[in-house]
Amino acid sequence: MRSFTDRVSEIDISGIRKMFEAAGTDSINLGLGEPDFPTPGHICDAAVDAIRIGHTKYTPGAGIPELRNALSEKFLRDNNISVSPDEVIVTSGASEALHIAMQALVEPGDDVLVPDPGFVSYSALSHIAGGRVIGVPLTGLGLVLDPDVVAEHITPNMKVLVVNSPSNPCGSVQSRKEIQALSELAEDYDFTIISDEVYEFFIYAGEHASPAEFTDNVVTVNAASKTYSMTGWRLGYLAARMEYIEQFHKVHQYVQACANSVAQAAVLAAITGSQDCVEDMRKTFEARRNLLIKGLLGMGVECPTPAGAFYVFPRVGDGDRVASELASRGVITVPGSAFGEYAREHIRISYATSESDIIRALGRMRDVIL
Amino acid sequence: MRSFTDRVSEIDISGIRKMFEAAGTDSINLGLGEPDFPTPGHICDAAVDAIRIGHTKYTPGAGIPELRNALSEKFLRDNNISVSPDEVIVTSGASEALHIAMQALVEPGDDVLVPDPGFVSYSALSHIAGGRVIGVPLTGLGLVLDPDVVAEHITPNMKVLVVNSPSNPCGSVQSRKEIQALSELAEDYDFTIISDEVYEFFIYAGEHASPAEFTDNVVTVNAASKTYSMTGWRLGYLAARMEYIEQFHKVHQYVQACANSVAQAAVLAAITGSQDCVEDMRKTFEARRNLLIKGLLGMGVECPTPAGAFYVFPRVGDGDRVASELASRGVITVPGSAFGEYAREHIRISYATSESDIIRALGRMRDVIL
Repeated sequence: MRSFTDRVSEIDISGIRKMFEAAGTDSINLGLGEPDFPTPGHICDAAVDAIRIGHTKYTPGAGIPELRNALSEKFLRDNNISVSPDEVIVTSGASEALHIAMQALVEPGDDVLVPDPGFVSYSALSHIAGGRVIGVPLTGLGLVLDPDVVAEHITPNMKVLVVNSPSNPCGSVQSRKEIQALSELAEDYDFTIISDEVYEFFIYAGEHASPAEFTDNVVTVNAASKTYSMTGWRLGYLAARMEYIEQFHKVHQYVQACANSVAQAAVLAAITGSQDCVEDMRKTFEARRNLLIKGLLGMGVECPTPAGAFYVFPRVGDGDRVASELASRGVITVPGSAFGEYAREHIRISYATSESDIIRALGRMRDVIL
Repeated sequence: MRSFTDRVSEIDISGIRKMFEAAGTDSINLGLGEPDFPTPGHICDAAVDAIRIGHTKYTPGAGIPELRNALSEKFLRDNNISVSPDEVIVTSGASEALHIAMQALVEPGDDVLVPDPGFVSYSALSHIAGGRVIGVPLTGLGLVLDPDVVAEHITPNMKVLVVNSPSNPCGSVQSRKEIQALSELAEDYDFTIISDEVYEFFIYAGEHASPAEFTDNVVTVNAASKTYSMTGWRLGYLAARMEYIEQFHKVHQYVQACANSVAQAAVLAAITGSQDCVEDMRKTFEARRNLLIKGLLGMGVECPTPAGAFYVFPRVGDGDRVASELASRGVITVPGSAFGEYAREHIRISYATSESDIIRALGRMRDVIL
């Protein structure tokens, strides 16, 4: 009877939903992309203070000036990117940041190149904007975007390339040289890179590099969600040159008005406070990663050691079948097919969970994977 | 050099921005659509409790079950609408709710009928979805949507009618009979009503009626922002039949993931707690409305007494000129031109501010308006 837009009705979310529904109540959930740590105390304290002083009203659409100032300093400190506070928009999670960039940049008929395998939202948000999605296969042992492979996929209608380093779901980290080469492609072919850097601090080998060090044709997207274990607060941000910001602001103004005022105060404390909590989490993730990799390699699973994020992405044969069997034994993972066309033989295992859960999960996995 | 999507770049937000920039630091701001009360204490307490117990992680995309249950009960209690908790999605403000409904319903080539004058977001969000906006002039002394006038504006490509009662910017309240007639049009012509009911409790004459009492062709949008003075928390919700919800969820999943977890806990306390705070605010708004109307009528301004919301919408001649002159004397209002084509002779004055500010503002207005 009623008709819905093709760009929305064609989106398929059944796969991931089924995985989660398959979980029994005593399942070990290695499916979620969410740190299991509590939000650090000093950040929670700042939120409580904000509530108590009545910081519960609309803020300026782009975010409170103090936070935009702090983010401008953060980009210089951590990413060697020089952006003014006016070139920053505070968003309701990195999700909204990715969405408003796609809405402003992608017309029906435009092509969006996304890493494949890649985070599920990139293709969905491209579709919602009316764009056609072209998956660029990640290659090499570490599963990264090879600039030469990207170049082969460029079309006349290409508008955007999504870069995500460290990568979800692969945990791979692009080298500075690769980031520079991708940035040069953006200059040569006049497209925009949307660089999703939400895992920037969870790197165990190598270093993080931002395309914005090398080109202005870029929107840098980040969030407090992973860095400070603040997923529920929905607080992200983006930085770009003013001609982008002016357009993004039009979408942000109407789809969101402003980000949650209490979360903005909390993230101000996070960005300007001690970063020890981040390093503590990084070290903990690293130990868990090593434990999980050792267990998987011990079973003979083909699994490169990921350099970043908090996922391993082993090749296990039929990823759908293996994920389904693991679920039936109480271990939730995500099949590679959820992340595109080129990773059907993989599963994503999150190690954002306790060492004891990882050990228990490895025990249950042995029967399925061996 | 770079190109942006027409649907976004054509949006003009300069008007409202200029108004706010014109404000001196000692300006009396009657421009904002935001209650000036603090968020009630028991709601803040619930938020603080949520933070302290670590309720700071992703929630289910549609919202925590307790809140969706409470909203299902709220719709029955307050609106005589029967919807299951699964037919409710908790969103990041009514803004996001309006946006995801437009995205799922409106294709390029579709027409969206919006009240004119009407809240600025309706046309912007229609544009962002790719739709063509048709303003339906509000008519009569009270400035309401006349079902016969709506019928005259229906086109073959019409997909959505936005209804907003009580109305921003007019403060008008549609009668139950009008709401029923609009609902019958939705049935007869098979379009969807998006009913924005965020001012439902701020009514001083008449009663609130929801289209969902009369038709299933409706998306009911609401929020905690106005009702509980929670604008900064960004917590809205929508209700609709499951075939709508399935499509809306696809957009919500990717553009937002979930609403702020702390705000969800706060709004659960708001919805399930005593509603005395709402009635207290309503009474205060009513007294302010009466004060403002009396002052305006005393100057001889043409100004019907609005039955709802917290705006008066007097006819003052050239609205742009009057708003600009008021701004130069330190009183911020919004010119009628910001709300469409048909209200250029009006200005919107918000009385979501103290009686003393209203009295001071009236003193400054006298020189401009007389």
